[in-house]
Amino acid sequence: MVSAKLRGVFCPVLTPFDEQLRPDASRFIEHCESLLHQGCHGLAVFGTTGEANSLSVKERIQLLEALLKAGIPPELIAPGTGCAALTDTITLTRHAFQSGCAGALILPPYYYKPVEEEGLYRSFATVIEDISDNGLNVYLYHIPPFSGVPLEIGLIKRLVKDFPHNVVGLKDSSGVWAYTDTLLKTLPDFGVFSGSEVFLRDNLLAKGCGTITASANINAPAICSLFEHWEGSNGISKQAEITAIRRAVQKFPLIQALKTVVADNLKDDAWLTVRPPLVPLTPIARKSLLESLAKVGYTPPN
Amino acid sequence: MVSAKLRGVFCPVLTPFDEQLRPDASRFIEHCESLLHQGCHGLAVFGTTGEANSLSVKERIQLLEALLKAGIPPELIAPGTGCAALTDTITLTRHAFQSGCAGALILPPYYYKPVEEEGLYRSFATVIEDISDNGLNVYLYHIPPFSGVPLEIGLIKRLVKDFPHNVVGLKDSSGVWAYTDTLLKTLPDFGVFSGSEVFLRDNLLAKGCGTITASANINAPAICSLFEHWEGSNGISKQAEITAIRRAVQKFPLIQALKTVVADNLKDDAWLTVRPPLVPLTPIARKSLLESLAKVGYTPPN
Repeated sequence: MVSAKLRGVFCPVLTPFDEQLRPDASRFIEHCESLLHQGCHGLAVFGTTGEANSLSVKERIQLLEALLKAGIPPELIAPGTGCAALTDTITLTRHAFQSGCAGALILPPYYYKPVEEEGLYRSFATVIEDISDNGLNVYLYHIPPFSGVPLEIGLIKRLVKDFPHNVVGLKDSSGVWAYTDTLLKTLPDFGVFSGSEVFLRDNLLAKGCGTITASANINAPAICSLFEHWEGSNGISKQAEITAIRRAVQKFPLIQALKTVVADNLKDDAWLTVRPPLVPLTPIARKSLLESLAKVGYTPPN
Repeated sequence: MVSAKLRGVFCPVLTPFDEQLRPDASRFIEHCESLLHQGCHGLAVFGTTGEANSLSVKERIQLLEALLKAGIPPELIAPGTGCAALTDTITLTRHAFQSGCAGALILPPYYYKPVEEEGLYRSFATVIEDISDNGLNVYLYHIPPFSGVPLEIGLIKRLVKDFPHNVVGLKDSSGVWAYTDTLLKTLPDFGVFSGSEVFLRDNLLAKGCGTITASANINAPAICSLFEHWEGSNGISKQAEITAIRRAVQKFPLIQALKTVVADNLKDDAWLTVRPPLVPLTPIARKSLLESLAKVGYTPPN
């Protein structure tokens, strides 16, 4: 893995499926290439938005191999590798590391709850010790609404202290700005990404590293522009514009809504498919979403 | 799979690990053989208690193969096969079915939440349709404290209506008796197991099928005796005795507490090992647990 600290706008890439609900590698590669072309600094494939928790270990490995084979540089990819099962997390993290990826975004094990801090510490430590290489860049993934397992600041301090070369950052998808703020005040050099571009300006003001945001699937140029030019009054108005677009999308179930917009932008209804337990938006909801987006001035990239 | 309706006391078997945190097939087989010898009507391997959600698909398949190779009859085994990822659930359910197991105990996909009833319906339906054989016995696994995804009665009615040969029962680990009661009143022929022996007598009074209970790992003879002789005043006192033992154990984290008791009964500390994110009980907690059990009259099986 590269040692340079990651910064910028990373896209947790949507995963397209074919009619048999199998991952569609061809559309996935095209979308990844397009996102990089639009200015994304990296691809956080296999996150919550990518329906990665509905994919098997083998499916994730095959999709990553397909991206690499298509020529997407591994140093621009930070895959999600955290699973409920410790052995699956080790398998995926090792694969990402050996593939030369920029980092691994690791969920805590998310079935057993509540768990003690010591148990979470051992979960992350076991993965890091198994790979045992200072080049492994671990980004912790804090997303209590889905994982049900929050990562408390005390745990993070302990991991950073014991694995300073490995535990280099975190994605905060709690939706609670105070968490990011406290974390950056406690660990000023920690690579903290906000989980939504709604907090991008706040994140950068607090000396965070940027955002890993689902909306980059549909609005990357505007979000990347804010990342580059966030200071001053122009930054405030840019933030307001992208926030309005995010709010319009997240009135609907987010993953399905983003797939709806991609399908509409590309005129390709194959993008509407989601894997259970998700269900696509109804035609009425799709229409309402697209109308809401038009009202807040959304224009498709390219 | 066998078509006879399952009834009785099923043990969600604890999974032993070696020092490298690998599943210990040899101790697992011995424990399964002992549980059947103690009177358990079946083995619900790879449940929550079995730390199955900390095991990879491959580890589960290898352990099941080891049980079968050791001569444990598949018609006495109902493995847990529900994972976060649809494809993993299909792989494990198909393996259990093709191995001739009595049934498959299936968790809902437990990462994405909240999800619509339609999404849960499609999750279960996709697994059933993929296997597409009336001999597949599906037991739904209702355990909101861990899954975060409750199975509402409306969903169950719909699944039973559309897959009457396949969706034959449910394990209720909600801890809410009203759920079992409502379910049995709504679907009188449904094979409902309580998730704790605390509700065994109530379950049988309401014409349920018995219990799939973690405590069977340490107290199977007494629980099985209640199942056989639950009617009348003798049943009431038997229920009180086993309930007191359960309450003493569940003052502690349940899985670790049960492993502590097995380790003590067998004089084999290897049984204390748990896989992260769980952590073993402290020596003080272990002592306190064993003293509490002695006070309520617990005696080890055999």
